[in-house]
Amino acid sequence: MWMETKTEMEKASRSRASLSRRVLNGLMLCTGDMEHLDKYMQDKWFVLQLLVWGLRGVTRVILANNPLSGALILAALCWASPWQGLLGALGVLASTLTAVITGQESADVAGGLHGFNGMLVSLLMGVFSSAGDWYWWLLLPVCLGSATCVFLSSGLSTFLDHWDLPAAVFPFNIIIVFYLLCTGTDNPYFPHHPAVPPGALDHNDTKLVAVQVVRGIPLGVGQIYACGALGPSLLILGAVVLYSPLLAVHAVLGSAVGTLAGLSMAVRHESLYSGLSGFNGALGCMAVGGLFFTFSWRTHLFAVASAFFSAYADIALSNLLGTVGLPACSWAATLVATLMLLLTGSLAAYRIPIGQARAPEHNLRSRSQWEAGNTEERESTDV
Amino acid sequence: MWMETKTEMEKASRSRASLSRRVLNGLMLCTGDMEHLDKYMQDKWFVLQLLVWGLRGVTRVILANNPLSGALILAALCWASPWQGLLGALGVLASTLTAVITGQESADVAGGLHGFNGMLVSLLMGVFSSAGDWYWWLLLPVCLGSATCVFLSSGLSTFLDHWDLPAAVFPFNIIIVFYLLCTGTDNPYFPHHPAVPPGALDHNDTKLVAVQVVRGIPLGVGQIYACGALGPSLLILGAVVLYSPLLAVHAVLGSAVGTLAGLSMAVRHESLYSGLSGFNGALGCMAVGGLFFTFSWRTHLFAVASAFFSAYADIALSNLLGTVGLPACSWAATLVATLMLLLTGSLAAYRIPIGQARAPEHNLRSRSQWEAGNTEERESTDV
Amino acid sequence: MWMETKTEMEKASRSRASLSRRVLNGLMLCTGDMEHLDKYMQDKWFVLQLLVWGLRGVTRVILANNPLSGALILAALCWASPWQGLLGALGVLASTLTAVITGQESADVAGGLHGFNGMLVSLLMGVFSSAGDWYWWLLLPVCLGSATCVFLSSGLSTFLDHWDLPAAVFPFNIIIVFYLLCTGTDNPYFPHHPAVPPGALDHNDTKLVAVQVVRGIPLGVGQIYACGALGPSLLILGAVVLYSPLLAVHAVLGSAVGTLAGLSMAVRHESLYSGLSGFNGALGCMAVGGLFFTFSWRTHLFAVASAFFSAYADIALSNLLGTVGLPACSWAATLVATLMLLLTGSLAAYRIPIGQARAPEHNLRSRSQWEAGNTEERESTDV
Repeated sequence: MWMETKTEMEKASRSRASLSRRVLNGLMLCTGDMEHLDKYMQDKWFVLQLLVWGLRGVTRVILANNPLSGALILAALCWASPWQGLLGALGVLASTLTAVITGQESADVAGGLHGFNGMLVSLLMGVFSSAGDWYWWLLLPVCLGSATCVFLSSGLSTFLDHWDLPAAVFPFNIIIVFYLLCTGTDNPYFPHHPAVPPGALDHNDTKLVAVQVVRGIPLGVGQIYACGALGPSLLILGAVVLYSPLLAVHAVLGSAVGTLAGLSMAVRHESLYSGLSGFNGALGCMAVGGLFFTFSWRTHLFAVASAFFSAYADIALSNLLGTVGLPACSWAATLVATLMLLLTGSLAAYRIPIGQARAPEHNLRSRSQWEAGNTEERESTDV
Repeated sequence: MWMETKTEMEKASRSRASLSRRVLNGLMLCTGDMEHLDKYMQDKWFVLQLLVWGLRGVTRVILANNPLSGALILAALCWASPWQGLLGALGVLASTLTAVITGQESADVAGGLHGFNGMLVSLLMGVFSSAGDWYWWLLLPVCLGSATCVFLSSGLSTFLDHWDLPAAVFPFNIIIVFYLLCTGTDNPYFPHHPAVPPGALDHNDTKLVAVQVVRGIPLGVGQIYACGALGPSLLILGAVVLYSPLLAVHAVLGSAVGTLAGLSMAVRHESLYSGLSGFNGALGCMAVGGLFFTFSWRTHLFAVASAFFSAYADIALSNLLGTVGLPACSWAATLVATLMLLLTGSLAAYRIPIGQARAPEHNLRSRSQWEAGNTEERESTDV
Repeated sequence: MWMETKTEMEKASRSRASLSRRVLNGLMLCTGDMEHLDKYMQDKWFVLQLLVWGLRGVTRVILANNPLSGALILAALCWASPWQGLLGALGVLASTLTAVITGQESADVAGGLHGFNGMLVSLLMGVFSSAGDWYWWLLLPVCLGSATCVFLSSGLSTFLDHWDLPAAVFPFNIIIVFYLLCTGTDNPYFPHHPAVPPGALDHNDTKLVAVQVVRGIPLGVGQIYACGALGPSLLILGAVVLYSPLLAVHAVLGSAVGTLAGLSMAVRHESLYSGLSGFNGALGCMAVGGLFFTFSWRTHLFAVASAFFSAYADIALSNLLGTVGLPACSWAATLVATLMLLLTGSLAAYRIPIGQARAPEHNLRSRSQWEAGNTEERESTDV
């Protein structure tokens, strides 16, 4: 009797364990890069494939690569503003289709690498437009600008390939600056707001509100998608957690570092409250902490340094470009991340070739496997 | 009798055919790159050789390479303004001689590759000078600026060689910007006009005159040599036709595209009327359509896209540099053409190595020969 | 007797000769790169080693590499202003230590290659600060800025290595511009003076004083360390003579050329008097004349040309950056020297690989030895 009960209990616990393991496995399938999806999608309709490529492209903006995260992020953008959601979706589709038409490498297209720049261009065009929401003429520059990103992305990749550097968001930063310069401030067809530099303009007469500053930290994550509402920003952060908790931690950490840097330079309060001070720090921190370098305490320190550089460089560039009414976008984080990838010395030892970079957790696992393999090999050669 | 007549008629028609063939052959000798001339000039006097090198350099500005076209273009410039003609000729000589003295590769010098940047620098110095024509002191910066182009051209070539990119007109664009910055707007020795950005300054109160806009299209070809008169512009276009009709078609097409882009951005009317809106489009279109890529309908579409990019980028850069009173020169077309040369995907398949690029018609012929050779070879190996 | 006297005299003269030879040898040991010191220092305390590395770093600013010269220069800086001397010493230590911590190559660290950018950043932060001397908060950006130089230096080296180009003072130029942009003109914590462009601002009402202009030439050498006093500038020049007389000659020559270029462009008198017109010319002249190219009359001519380019480019860049209140620092000389290193043609034949560049005199000797070896070899193979 006792034995039986025990066996039953064991069975039950085993089945419970297997259930939770199955749930966990199911969850695990939805996290990380979801590479198994690619095999499954191979013989599906083109429209379905395009959808997955597009959703991957949506997450590439925040250095992730997961279609489910992409869907969450698109939902967050639509929640914040349906018009912005539409622009973002249109941008990612326009540039992915252009990549298909101009015959870019299919692996890159399928990985969403030709979608994220177009999406950012579209979102920023919408944010800077002073013609209000649902101004349908804006779809013309949105489509053209997104398509042009593919050309820049392809050309820059060829140039940077020699140092194994990614084109990253350079195309977006170039195109948006050119668009704003091209239309000027009082264009009759495509008017837009000039950017306000974070430097001392209104001399911060009011007192700084600590709660608002802390609120700016998660907003910094949302500002990567030019989204300034708290709810959607938290949803975007949630989407990053789904892809990789480690990346999400670095995003929040980087945003906090960026806010700190902003405080130390006495930038406009508005800049701190809206999260604009934080998003370059977040991007700089994420790029080094886990994505392009295997995670370790050393990499982590370099990631914090990278966040500080990105944040200070962003203030400097914003002040410079602000003199001609231009925003600094994510120039700072992109330049700093590129610099970090070029670094020699102790950081270079952790560098992952950009073609092999996956979710930070996956990078960690593949490195330890690889090192274990190395040790085994060495042992076997010793014998 | 009948037989005899027939034979005579055959003879006559044969002799007529041979005459027309000889005339055609004579004309053919004057078109394209005229490479046969180089062999003929090998053992001639240095002054004669220098003349041919200089005339080749004159045509390199408009992406051609033919001494007769060069003579036509110089005549057109002298027609528009003898002072500008003198400056241009001096510039091309000064920089070609500097290249000889500093020991640049003789094949490059003979191909006129060290003359065209110097010529452009001289022409633009003359156009921007506010000291009037025949201000002899200007010859000093003209000679120095042209000579400096050789240094920049040589250095940039070494840098860009890794991607098989040409130095193009980067040296000219750099030197002219540095010259204008160096002298400032109210220099006591070398005063110059500030550049007026195409963006909304005078708000286009008057109505747009369609005839003037159409007239701006051929003027856009002349503006490549900073020439704003219709007659000389048409003569310059004729010189391009002599080199390669295909290139001339792309020049006019590109200028039209540039004017269209200017209209869509509501630039100053003056900019459209003078052809300044068109010349970057023309250069961008010519570089892709036939010169650096074998001509085909695909290349043609990319050439139109390149013209649009160049034109929009020119408006953007003009607005940016205009804030400090600088002109955008041909920065836009040069950057876009460089980007196009870096592109991967379907355009890259048509890419011609820059050392082997000749007149578009020649490129087409050598490609078809090469492909025919390939097929034959494949067939012979099949057997 | 006569014989004996002769022998004694011979002995005395011999001993005198050997004494002077020994003194000369002792002096010779203190000139040039003092590579023998490195072997001697290998097993000494880390603090002593760090001192030598730092002093080498101090001289690297002026393209020299000699710890004794470094000590002289530090003394000169302290003579001009103890606060500036402190900042300079702190900067060189902060960046050398950062290089050690981030695991940069030890040969580079020992050669002072990671110290000079940090020192320049610190000195310029001190000069531009409007908070007065002994403003201790400034040490914070001084340490951070110097440390950041190591990152830029390492990253840029990887980038430029492909063309065998040095990172040179690019890191310093980038960091100081970013620092000034970041703090803006009226930052509450780190206020600074805006830079005044050399272009026509105050229209030179007063007459030019020739003595003051001549006095600006040695001051141009001191301005390389942002030092505007005559005595310390001469001491710095002396330190260069100790390293290499040939380099010192080029420094003075380049400064004179720069002053001449400034006169020809009618820059502000203040710019000529303070030596600010000369220091880019000096740097451009030194880099080409003997350091990166074996000295010869050809190289000498190119060095003069390089000095002219550097000086004119400096006026242009100062006018450009002055519009947003930024200084041009040594951007001009760094860019021109980089261009010269990329040059093909007759100058390239004299190029020394950057890893093997020593004091100009040493370069000359090693080249003649190498050429002699070559001739011998050729002769032996002839036989």
